[in-house]
Amino acid sequence: MATIKDIAAKLGIAVSTVSKGLNGASDISDDMRQLVLDTAVEMGYASKKMKTLKSRKVCILVENMDYESIDQFGYELIVGFKLSAARKHWDVTVIPANLNMQAIEKYDTYMLKNGFSGAFLIGFALHDDWVKQLSKTTVPTVLFDNYIAGNNHVGYVGTDSFEGIQMAIDHLAGLGHKQIAFLNGSKNSMVSEQRHQAFVQSMEENKLEVKDSLIEYGYYVPDCAKYHVPKFLKQGATAIVCASDLIASGVIAEVKKFGLRVPEDISVIGFDDLPISNQLEPPLTTIRQDRIDLGKSALLLLDGLVHNVTISKLLLRAKFIKRESCSTYNPSAVKKIKSSVKKVDDPKDNPDSETES
Amino acid sequence: MATIKDIAAKLGIAVSTVSKGLNGASDISDDMRQLVLDTAVEMGYASKKMKTLKSRKVCILVENMDYESIDQFGYELIVGFKLSAARKHWDVTVIPANLNMQAIEKYDTYMLKNGFSGAFLIGFALHDDWVKQLSKTTVPTVLFDNYIAGNNHVGYVGTDSFEGIQMAIDHLAGLGHKQIAFLNGSKNSMVSEQRHQAFVQSMEENKLEVKDSLIEYGYYVPDCAKYHVPKFLKQGATAIVCASDLIASGVIAEVKKFGLRVPEDISVIGFDDLPISNQLEPPLTTIRQDRIDLGKSALLLLDGLVHNVTISKLLLRAKFIKRESCSTYNPSAVKKIKSSVKKVDDPKDNPDSETES
Repeated sequence: MATIKDIAAKLGIAVSTVSKGLNGASDISDDMRQLVLDTAVEMGYASKKMKTLKSRKVCILVENMDYESIDQFGYELIVGFKLSAARKHWDVTVIPANLNMQAIEKYDTYMLKNGFSGAFLIGFALHDDWVKQLSKTTVPTVLFDNYIAGNNHVGYVGTDSFEGIQMAIDHLAGLGHKQIAFLNGSKNSMVSEQRHQAFVQSMEENKLEVKDSLIEYGYYVPDCAKYHVPKFLKQGATAIVCASDLIASGVIAEVKKFGLRVPEDISVIGFDDLPISNQLEPPLTTIRQDRIDLGKSALLLLDGLVHNVTISKLLLRAKFIKRESCSTYNPSAVKKIKSSVKKVDDPKDNPDSETES
Repeated sequence: MATIKDIAAKLGIAVSTVSKGLNGASDISDDMRQLVLDTAVEMGYASKKMKTLKSRKVCILVENMDYESIDQFGYELIVGFKLSAARKHWDVTVIPANLNMQAIEKYDTYMLKNGFSGAFLIGFALHDDWVKQLSKTTVPTVLFDNYIAGNNHVGYVGTDSFEGIQMAIDHLAGLGHKQIAFLNGSKNSMVSEQRHQAFVQSMEENKLEVKDSLIEYGYYVPDCAKYHVPKFLKQGATAIVCASDLIASGVIAEVKKFGLRVPEDISVIGFDDLPISNQLEPPLTTIRQDRIDLGKSALLLLDGLVHNVTISKLLLRAKFIKRESCSTYNPSAVKKIKSSVKKVDDPKDNPDSETES
């Protein structure tokens, strides 16, 4: 591993200048500081302070996920992480990492400059700048719901999507539903892809026909329901599995707009078990992701990576939460469903906005 | 959770008798002790001692895996587990769990009777009695290389087989090999199934034809090579991927028997990176499973389960270890390979013996 001397030799400058650059002293130019930092990252430098257990400083980087209040997905992820970090006396900083910030500076440089010896990234997408850089990072990094191949310094934590979707389909199949629709999350996301595969496989295991026209990708917002639910209903779907509770809340509202009832006419299942799911009318049957435990597990994974235990994947169990949004298949509702959507025109195309859970 | 009083009430006996049964006192009959233990297990009883962190006592149960010497697969798994356990002041007992022992007593009863608050199971197969009971156990349990669906108390730790096999195929494809054979481990094992899927997918990703006749299941012993290698060679395989280093050692010996050279005529890749792999002639290129880290991760997972963090899967990265048993595809060898096996009769069918790595 490179030392301060190596960096000084490479740049042909004094060791004291390198030290100033690394430690944020004010009496060198910004350009010089940047050069020192970039070279340090390139040469794989890690300061002694960052390698010392007692003073470990890590961060949670948040992009495109709400976490300020207890009813939002990110809140408990952060609580769980901080709980476990406190036990190890690690110092945690939560930082919103917008796209601009990612464009200005490289991930490794940012981490080195701020003295973080590890990070937990939540809400990021595979195409984000910093995530793209993760295939080469040397900073121990845990990604929520995304996987980076071939880099020992990066691990993935998440809920077993496969198990979760399987529980949803098994429940609906057990209630006699055959025409089951799936309103998935954002396209080009690893988790959406996993859930799609799980949906197809679980339908087949239950000997139910998989219709491509009953599978759509939305975004993690209630609004996406209005673009897809009318089509599902037209095709005779009697149950709709949603990739998040927020999507499910939109689906329930949309179903009601057509004069249909949940669950008597249409059964709906969510994903996440956010606090909102218990307050919906009817209370939502859903697949729980235990966010406190996800946060705790992220810290545990990061601890492994920091100690060179190359964990690549850590999955938590999904939990089935039965409430009141599903009921047995009702053959007499099928005609009602189809006729209720007949009068309505085709919906518009997909929206442009995108948020992730 | 049931208390000693609940057990006494259910059985209609004195609390002191229940206490004697649970604590192994000698002044009650064996039948009574068994009845107390079975009832305690059935009612989900866990003693205070088992729930107290400081005195935690756990075990490693070993079935069908060698672990006595440093060159065997299980050795470092146990070392890694004990290393992390020592840091938490957990007491670890290693117990060979033969089939007879599993037939005599139920898993949960055994654990309760011996005061173990968790276990790490290595070398077990899905059809073993105690593994079959794991879908209902309430004892925090970590399984190496096997997965139990639907029970929050059981987790799976292993190396990412998919990544490992992919590395092997990518390497061979990069060397120009097209006819790549796969000698997998035992059939009906989760890991063998994962590796099979990985083989097929990686071949397809490299635009190579997958031939069913070049895929065989053996056992984790060198001897299985002689049943399959001649067939592979007859069909023009120029590279053989093996599910363990022991299998690879048998494959190299078998290839040499036909007057062929490794790697000039046939390339061979192992799996595991046991100490033997560096001593083979030629030294074996292989996919490393870091057994110390697997052991450490098993303890970490068990710690999670004990604290009701329902981790279901924890996967470590596979590592590609390049030595000398692979070389670039040699077109002039193909004729030599085929003619060298021509004189030899068809091999016998599969052997009956079975051991696992």
